[in-house]
Amino acid sequence: MDLKEQSLKLHKDAKGKIATVSKVKLETKEDLSLAYTPGVAYVCKEIEKDKELAYTYTSKQNMVAVITDGSAVLGLGNIGPYAAIPVMEGKSILLHELAGVDSIPLCLKTQDTEEIIKICKALEPTLGAINLEDISAPRCVEIERRLIKEMDIPVFHDDQHGTSIIVAAAFINVERLTKKPLKDMTVVLSGTGAAGSMIAKMLKKIGVGQIYAYNKDGVVSKRNYANYDFLLKELLDEGTLSSPDESKKTLADLMVNANAFIGVSAANLVSKEMVKSMAENPIVFAMANPNPEIGYDDAKDAGAYICGSGRSDYPNQINNVLAFPGLFKGALMAKAKKITEGMKLKAAYAIANLISDEELNPNYIVPSAFDKRVVPAVSKAVCDEAIAEGVCR
Amino acid sequence: MDLKEQSLKLHKDAKGKIATVSKVKLETKEDLSLAYTPGVAYVCKEIEKDKELAYTYTSKQNMVAVITDGSAVLGLGNIGPYAAIPVMEGKSILLHELAGVDSIPLCLKTQDTEEIIKICKALEPTLGAINLEDISAPRCVEIERRLIKEMDIPVFHDDQHGTSIIVAAAFINVERLTKKPLKDMTVVLSGTGAAGSMIAKMLKKIGVGQIYAYNKDGVVSKRNYANYDFLLKELLDEGTLSSPDESKKTLADLMVNANAFIGVSAANLVSKEMVKSMAENPIVFAMANPNPEIGYDDAKDAGAYICGSGRSDYPNQINNVLAFPGLFKGALMAKAKKITEGMKLKAAYAIANLISDEELNPNYIVPSAFDKRVVPAVSKAVCDEAIAEGVCR
Repeated sequence: MDLKEQSLKLHKDAKGKIATVSKVKLETKEDLSLAYTPGVAYVCKEIEKDKELAYTYTSKQNMVAVITDGSAVLGLGNIGPYAAIPVMEGKSILLHELAGVDSIPLCLKTQDTEEIIKICKALEPTLGAINLEDISAPRCVEIERRLIKEMDIPVFHDDQHGTSIIVAAAFINVERLTKKPLKDMTVVLSGTGAAGSMIAKMLKKIGVGQIYAYNKDGVVSKRNYANYDFLLKELLDEGTLSSPDESKKTLADLMVNANAFIGVSAANLVSKEMVKSMAENPIVFAMANPNPEIGYDDAKDAGAYICGSGRSDYPNQINNVLAFPGLFKGALMAKAKKITEGMKLKAAYAIANLISDEELNPNYIVPSAFDKRVVPAVSKAVCDEAIAEGVCR
Repeated sequence: MDLKEQSLKLHKDAKGKIATVSKVKLETKEDLSLAYTPGVAYVCKEIEKDKELAYTYTSKQNMVAVITDGSAVLGLGNIGPYAAIPVMEGKSILLHELAGVDSIPLCLKTQDTEEIIKICKALEPTLGAINLEDISAPRCVEIERRLIKEMDIPVFHDDQHGTSIIVAAAFINVERLTKKPLKDMTVVLSGTGAAGSMIAKMLKKIGVGQIYAYNKDGVVSKRNYANYDFLLKELLDEGTLSSPDESKKTLADLMVNANAFIGVSAANLVSKEMVKSMAENPIVFAMANPNPEIGYDDAKDAGAYICGSGRSDYPNQINNVLAFPGLFKGALMAKAKKITEGMKLKAAYAIANLISDEELNPNYIVPSAFDKRVVPAVSKAVCDEAIAEGVCR
């Protein structure tokens, strides 16, 4: 059987990937009188007096909803909420299997921004946190920002921040390995959607010097400012993205003498010649999925010093599975009201620092997705930071 | 420890009552590539072509959301969505433990009817069915009716129909036991909220002759028609409730010569004298919780032939746990698009018929909540009826 047949069979035989179970016994009248009526009424009355006690007496304390509208699923695009279910179930079971966090997938039959915001807010009572997922940019940014402001539980759009945290971890280790200060680095970013935008912001926060960007409309530049959405304008306004001079008309132009390339865009945009034109010891993270901007072998051939991709069959997989399970676990452990920039940064450093100086090498700058040390390290760092920042309930 | 302390401890120690688990293995790169990317994309694409395949490949096929706005929780009233969580978790785990149905509790932070309708509709993709719960009357009726019409999955408000199905089952067995035809019976109903209204409709459907009702505003009569909500007007319009003559001014007046009393109202409304005034071999179902309209011992003392209550410590517990788990299981087995009146009726007969002629006696007219035969019998009857009515997908 090929991968398609195997995957269809797995999903069909298992009848979906997620199930719910009871954490208490329900076998006798006495069990029923404690977990349900009449005993449950006492628990209700306690929470009625102080709704924060929902964190003590209910599953809210460990429950994350994975919420999408199906508008930007994987690399498949706007396939809608039904076709999105298998991906959301996948996220939910990853949260449970990797971090012990309970999670339910909710695929919404609306792509109206205001309605999505209303629904998420209405769902707050039973949820400990929300993982927004696969919502198209820049709507996802607007939805996430509104919910962070208007809700009292952590809301985190993984497509924006998950990859950005791992890329930041990778660059922290690039600096450790190459000894070249991040502030002296020039990075070329291909793709300015949800992931690309937040990668730029995160890299700037850890100290990267200059970031130039390219997207399907061409080189990102202040000259085209009027045509950009609010997010791209913001990236230019705040100086996250630098605006290149008029001579830079193509991606190839941008890459000349750059130190690093980061692709979250489309297959085969980068040639060997373009890699060869980069500065000494170039870094190439070609993360378009399933087919990267340039293949690992071609990039290495062209002289790339460190390569990373979204694929598990090559070194340095930039996999957001490294971030979100521990991040949610840490936020829930701390009873954090939100996930702050500080918490995301600490997650990036925790991931980077799992690799010792001895272990660190160009083929090993981020841990594997199955490294058992990742979730405990990330969750502890995130929890500690939440407490230090005073954002907990 | 008393019941309160025991129940609080149980909920605290268990950290809430519901958890989620993965139905597939996630231990290796290969597992991940089948259950998540890249393999999951093939499953998404199949569902994109035909959204009905969500029933084949996802947990939708077995997933029921228990949804409330916290406006009428147990006997506690409008305690809000946070305080309602323990009850909804209780329903969810009962669905799982008794019927093997997966279930998630969702407590909504809104009591706006239109908003609740919108949210439920938006949640359709991941859900196999919706169990509305503890929403105040008559809003609950409006919400349920709209959702049944506007959604493509079963929507069932347990407070309305759960108790009514068990009361109907009990009356089916009252007829078997007493040989008195239901059409010759006069029933007095105290309480015309969600449960009371649907009990009246259901009893009428199984053939009960006359039903008079009483509620907190007094005897229900066409003379006060203008003051009633749409539901009570409907019950009078369609002849479900009979309108008594002017001489009947109190509950006591209604009960003179009645064959049965059904209470879903408030404690201590019924005296021994009132029971004594009823026709021969009176039937008294006093179901106000936790304190009934009249206690079992007093009712028996006053000559009641068959007594029923909501309590597990007396005979004939009218417990909706008998209905909803099997009902949802049957509807999901059939892939029914809705739960029809016929399916509810068949559930009532299935519950009644579990008791053989030999077993049937005044202290045993409904099975126990832990009778293992109930869920298989109810789910089969409901599934068969759904198929017979052609309401399946």
